[in-house]
Amino acid sequence: MSRVEVEKKVLNENQILAGQLRERYRQSGILCVNLISAPGSGKTLLLEKTLERMDKSTRVAVLTGDLQTENDAQRLAKFGFPVRQIVTGGTCHLDARMVEKHLADWKLEELELLIVENVGNLVCPSSYDLGEDAKIVLLSTTEGEDKPLKYPSIFFKSELMILTKIDLLPYVPFKAEVAKENARRVHPQMEILEVSSTTGEGLDAWMEWLRARQGKKVETPAARSER
Amino acid sequence: MSRVEVEKKVLNENQILAGQLRERYRQSGILCVNLISAPGSGKTLLLEKTLERMDKSTRVAVLTGDLQTENDAQRLAKFGFPVRQIVTGGTCHLDARMVEKHLADWKLEELELLIVENVGNLVCPSSYDLGEDAKIVLLSTTEGEDKPLKYPSIFFKSELMILTKIDLLPYVPFKAEVAKENARRVHPQMEILEVSSTTGEGLDAWMEWLRARQGKKVETPAARSER
Repeated sequence: MSRVEVEKKVLNENQILAGQLRERYRQSGILCVNLISAPGSGKTLLLEKTLERMDKSTRVAVLTGDLQTENDAQRLAKFGFPVRQIVTGGTCHLDARMVEKHLADWKLEELELLIVENVGNLVCPSSYDLGEDAKIVLLSTTEGEDKPLKYPSIFFKSELMILTKIDLLPYVPFKAEVAKENARRVHPQMEILEVSSTTGEGLDAWMEWLRARQGKKVETPAARSER
Repeated sequence: MSRVEVEKKVLNENQILAGQLRERYRQSGILCVNLISAPGSGKTLLLEKTLERMDKSTRVAVLTGDLQTENDAQRLAKFGFPVRQIVTGGTCHLDARMVEKHLADWKLEELELLIVENVGNLVCPSSYDLGEDAKIVLLSTTEGEDKPLKYPSIFFKSELMILTKIDLLPYVPFKAEVAKENARRVHPQMEILEVSSTTGEGLDAWMEWLRARQGKKVETPAARSER
């Protein structure tokens, strides 16, 4: 079997498992989002600020992926919500099997929101469906404005782009308008938010996006047709 | 054939080609360095500043890799040295075959330094030998200090770590000492330089590192034994 054939087989198997996960999320009324970015774009800090702002009654859980270390799970555990680290041991992305395995003893029917923080990598995670409702790509103001053009797959597949570290805009040559224009060249319908996890700017809009997206998910087809 | 077997086969084939490239570099007296980092850590800007500072008589050439776009080659071409873009079309790393193909019509015997800028990715490029003399990993001050622990393979395999964007240190929570300590936990002998391509700080030391590394390479075993 050639390399391409093996890759196809692996991706097909992943797709089947992801479909099963998606169905389980649907049955339990869970919104699952998959956060993807380059290493160091601020996924974990955004998650810390997100969990900090959530009402303690929110039924949210987090799976966080890294090649090595439990650092992120430790950072995220202090907010009292269920958090689990997926250590890939060298693999450059999360796949549906890793997610399924780490969900094993969680009662999905008790959750409403599952946030998956992927391995820091703008390339490989875009090929692996995790059964999520939405991929979310983060781009930080310390990277180049042309990243959406250089890494089009993940920007094309993401429902939302979060431009992070906007507090650093005065100190970097980054032009937010150019980055957004590049993102929309790859994916015209993509939603875009701007946040600074350090100053808190834009976090309200992000929390509102999550709530609205959850509302859109639990809205039944029947409810929709009544409009 | 299982996925692991196919991966082994691909890596073995790559290793053979990389060995051939290494031998060609040796015969031509070329130092080849392979620059690896997350997307947006400043590889291309560092290369712009590097080429800008080089004497026009320097026999340097650059291969620059990206999934899409010729942006980086365009940025680097203005210094008058041979530059060629490798568009991987989605592949998350450069491999020895891509390098060999793009070197095809360059006269290696006319070069003394070949700089390869890998695809922006801290994971996959670490597995693919390109026949280089040294891997160089860039880490920027806007990423986390724990990146060497989370992505140990590339820090372990790199001869040099360049801490980039040190001009931003006053505006970010990054502690350089912690990052360097983490890097040395993974790779005690790794050399470390700190640079800002924006202010120029540290660029002299980097140029000196390149010159010294080149000197070390062309020094023949006979010359060494005469000491």
